[in-house]
Amino acid sequence: MARILVLYNPPADAAAFNKYYHETHIPLAKRIPGLRSYEISATPPRLMAGNPVYLVAALNFDSVADIDAAFASPEGQATAADLANFAQAGVTLLVFDTEAV
Amino acid sequence: MARILVLYNPPADAAAFNKYYHETHIPLAKRIPGLRSYEISATPPRLMAGNPVYLVAALNFDSVADIDAAFASPEGQATAADLANFAQAGVTLLVFDTEAV
Repeated sequence: MARILVLYNPPADAAAFNKYYHETHIPLAKRIPGLRSYEISATPPRLMAGNPVYLVAALNFDSVADIDAAFASPEGQATAADLANFAQAGVTLLVFDTEAV
Repeated sequence: MARILVLYNPPADAAAFNKYYHETHIPLAKRIPGLRSYEISATPPRLMAGNPVYLVAALNFDSVADIDAAFASPEGQATAADLANFAQAGVTLLVFDTEAV
């Protein structure tokens, strides 16, 4: 399996972020071709070390090649472009193959 | 499901980090009570935005209550204390309930 992991920095307006994320961004992201599953933190994560994160999203695919194809697709490009509409506080966005240990 | 998500900052000595993580830290962490599954990034994540991360680890439990019990257990305390032996570059450590969307 391969994953896009997105860590959203704490937004200035949490209520506006929540509304936009759930009503607009999730529906856009769910149209991305090759997406197998999509999970988010149900509530803001408890920070035990490091830098605060407001929301974690994991988008799972079969392979990194599928993620590359997803980013190149119109749906992927629309989803990436949508970040500018609600994630002004910044994100960390990582792509990797996962391995069970 | 609930998750401990650990993002390791890039280490000064990647080979030493890899060896210690796989040979010592994973076996310690796998002894934590309540751990349902444990997955890591197979290779250093591709950074598409934000701050570089060398390794991502996701430790999955049934609930945040189980994670609290895990941190309080001798095995959890030993695993947390072990971070000082190889994660000198720093970590972000988050705890949250997950939700499929």
